[in-house]
Amino acid sequence: MPNAKDTMQALRWHAAKDLRIDTIPRPKNPGENEVQIAPEWCGICGSDLHEYLVGPVLAPAPGKPHPLTGEEPPLTFGHEFAGRITSVGSSVNDLQVGQKVFIDPVIADKSCYMCTQRSAPNACEQLGFMGLSGAGGGLSEAVNVPADRVYPLPDEIDTDVGALIEPISVAWHAVALSGFQPGQDALILGAGPIGLATLLSLKAHKRSAGGQGRILVSEVSNSRKAMAKSFGADNVLDPTQTDVIAESKKICDGVGPHVTFDCSGLQVTAQTAIRAVRSGGTAMNIAIWETEVRFNPNELLLAEKRYLGAICYTPKDIREVIEAMRDGRIEIDEARKMITKKVALKDGVKGGFEELSVVMNNIIYATSASSEPSSLISLIT
Amino acid sequence: MPNAKDTMQALRWHAAKDLRIDTIPRPKNPGENEVQIAPEWCGICGSDLHEYLVGPVLAPAPGKPHPLTGEEPPLTFGHEFAGRITSVGSSVNDLQVGQKVFIDPVIADKSCYMCTQRSAPNACEQLGFMGLSGAGGGLSEAVNVPADRVYPLPDEIDTDVGALIEPISVAWHAVALSGFQPGQDALILGAGPIGLATLLSLKAHKRSAGGQGRILVSEVSNSRKAMAKSFGADNVLDPTQTDVIAESKKICDGVGPHVTFDCSGLQVTAQTAIRAVRSGGTAMNIAIWETEVRFNPNELLLAEKRYLGAICYTPKDIREVIEAMRDGRIEIDEARKMITKKVALKDGVKGGFEELSVVMNNIIYATSASSEPSSLISLIT
Repeated sequence: MPNAKDTMQALRWHAAKDLRIDTIPRPKNPGENEVQIAPEWCGICGSDLHEYLVGPVLAPAPGKPHPLTGEEPPLTFGHEFAGRITSVGSSVNDLQVGQKVFIDPVIADKSCYMCTQRSAPNACEQLGFMGLSGAGGGLSEAVNVPADRVYPLPDEIDTDVGALIEPISVAWHAVALSGFQPGQDALILGAGPIGLATLLSLKAHKRSAGGQGRILVSEVSNSRKAMAKSFGADNVLDPTQTDVIAESKKICDGVGPHVTFDCSGLQVTAQTAIRAVRSGGTAMNIAIWETEVRFNPNELLLAEKRYLGAICYTPKDIREVIEAMRDGRIEIDEARKMITKKVALKDGVKGGFEELSVVMNNIIYATSASSEPSSLISLIT
Repeated sequence: MPNAKDTMQALRWHAAKDLRIDTIPRPKNPGENEVQIAPEWCGICGSDLHEYLVGPVLAPAPGKPHPLTGEEPPLTFGHEFAGRITSVGSSVNDLQVGQKVFIDPVIADKSCYMCTQRSAPNACEQLGFMGLSGAGGGLSEAVNVPADRVYPLPDEIDTDVGALIEPISVAWHAVALSGFQPGQDALILGAGPIGLATLLSLKAHKRSAGGQGRILVSEVSNSRKAMAKSFGADNVLDPTQTDVIAESKKICDGVGPHVTFDCSGLQVTAQTAIRAVRSGGTAMNIAIWETEVRFNPNELLLAEKRYLGAICYTPKDIREVIEAMRDGRIEIDEARKMITKKVALKDGVKGGFEELSVVMNNIIYATSASSEPSSLISLIT
């Protein structure tokens, strides 16, 4: 019989509405170019909740292994995580046991056009994620990870905030890809987790520009409006009470923000993003869509606006987010406010996924931990 | 009674399906910063035909004068024209009587954000056109034009090809705005006048790149396919016979063209433009739309593609097109093939607009002249 050292607990997806805390074999020693991580904190992402409620969406279906991991359900979940190195492979020279680290969960084939010629593994043709597509995940006691996807955290960044590097990097990348320049004005549509992460990223750029540039947020939920305000949005507009297009135009020199970020992925937010951005500006979509969008391309054409989309992040984005946290452009205590609950791994199904699903239309982000069983949830509703 | 010198002939729009050759007052002497032009050749554009068939579309409606010209119907038509200077205003020092010139028809307010801060009068908030919004037009015997919108033609460019500078500049501008780089691959969707103008522009860039870069064209009409081939397209694909997305991917290094140009403005061409372009590439829309487009933004997002629109041209584009014609990157005799018919001004309604309307779904471009009554039409059908 295996002893306790040979097994571990992991939160695994078996089917829609069927998540379990399973006892599974603990990973062997890491390969020569790998390290073994003990995850300390791991976020539950909107895409995790989609998998829980109606999956498989991005996760491989039973009988259809993911092309890069070769795995199919049950799958260990958790792709937004940070932890400590517990073991180091024989060829890894730059990482040490005991280091606290963030893990880039992106699995790319390293052979496609985007991987090889555009330095964009985030848009790999066969994109996968540790914690979603197989290869273990953050919602477990141990996981082996290629060393080149491991980022040491400076002293300032604890592993709970470390887990937030993932969603903040999503936003950071979208801001970079949009062509936004520090000092410009921006409008964020939707102050959910990615909307708030976009706000933190824009605020970091605003600091670089000596405080220049307005950050506007459009949001309907009272709690999210308060959150956006407390995160430093210059103007929080409620589309049920204000004409967001007219108002943001008025606030931003009579012409509108330079860039708009659709963090909601709805027909109305896409249309607002396109109409509110100033002529010659960029409407950037960060949301994953479940439906088609409709608009008249003349709206882009006549004002030479651009409609773009961004996915995930590159290693460069991750390094920049860690640096921005370290030097204070992203305030760590502010970022920590994105954590709405802490829950132990053993309680992660009921206290994490089930509870979040109830309020999914209001808030999609929480952090679930494997190491702090006494922490409590404070949900934004 | 006025004598003949005080009046002139002009083709004027009175209402949909009501174009007339009117005798109207000849313009007075040009203002101090104007010149008077005798138009020699003038194109009939797709937008002219739209005004003829179902207008007013862009033209001001009766009782609703255009904000920049103050004019309402009847309106002298013709915005794609070249001619000779017949008179020069007192403060104009750099233009001479007798010079052959191209006229930039764009009327901008010079006070909006795009005009003042983006050097983009082409996307002016109150955009108007000489020959469509008032201010006279090319389909008349004389017109006064601000001197700063007049471009002398080098010896190599006759005024019939000079009229083509307008549609070619539309394409040239879209190519520039798309971020296309000489040497890259491109797919043009639709080989109508703007599609062919895009082909000429891309071919000019291909020459600059020493012949590098493939130019693909997708088109259904046999005559247009032949035209695209004769204009030097590397591959002409027929979407009724070929999977354009798969085939263009195969031709372009297995990943697809760097940029796609939608010169048709249809649901199917927009979708093809977005799907056929390689990851990280740009789908550029040049067509004016009559309906909404539908697509799933995930198609942009997951491959970080960009969907853009371009309108008209800037003075820079016009200068570059003239220079490309002068130095041979755009072959003048090839450009001349875009002229499908020549017709005298007096016959312009029946021989120009009416005849073109019949075949509007096949070809939208022709040149109508005020000075060569014996020329004949050769329509592409």
